[in-house]
Amino acid sequence: MSEEKEHSQVIYIGKKNTISYVLVAVTILNKSDECSIQARGRQISKAVDVAEITRRKFLADKVEVSKVEIGSEELQGTEENPITKTVSTVEIVLTKKE
Amino acid sequence: MSEEKEHSQVIYIGKKNTISYVLVAVTILNKSDECSIQARGRQISKAVDVAEITRRKFLADKVEVSKVEIGSEELQGTEENPITKTVSTVEIVLTKKE
Repeated sequence: MSEEKEHSQVIYIGKKNTISYVLVAVTILNKSDECSIQARGRQISKAVDVAEITRRKFLADKVEVSKVEIGSEELQGTEENPITKTVSTVEIVLTKKE
Repeated sequence: MSEEKEHSQVIYIGKKNTISYVLVAVTILNKSDECSIQARGRQISKAVDVAEITRRKFLADKVEVSKVEIGSEELQGTEENPITKTVSTVEIVLTKKE
């Protein structure tokens, strides 16, 4: 979704529960300065939860939201269901405070 | 969620379908320069959909996302269920291009 992807570690939000992703984010941020949380469709709400819980509960005052970007992505249909769908996407970057 | 609230018209995303809110956004942006889309919890994904569909399908090349902000809000419990919950929030501001 952006060039920053190459520099910061990315978490793709899927169907696991919120806290699993929070723990991944905390682990990444304990080792590096930046973490990018990406999601699409219905998982967008969960991505915001992951960012907020990480920022407020686990690494309070240590990280901040440095970027929130929304966009759209085309999903190619499958053979069974050949309709191309557009889904919304989000990228939230958490950065350690200096 | 920000001081801009006073200047731009706000759409609170609730349980109606996505297209209803898109039409409200289009109507607002036909009259004024800015529109703030706000949501919390599970409706956050819908807010992103509303912004993206408005920007890409209905007012293509006429509006842009000028701000995306995430945050948290405390929800006071009711008498029946007195637990205070924290929910994530989002504010997306669409602005007419010059």
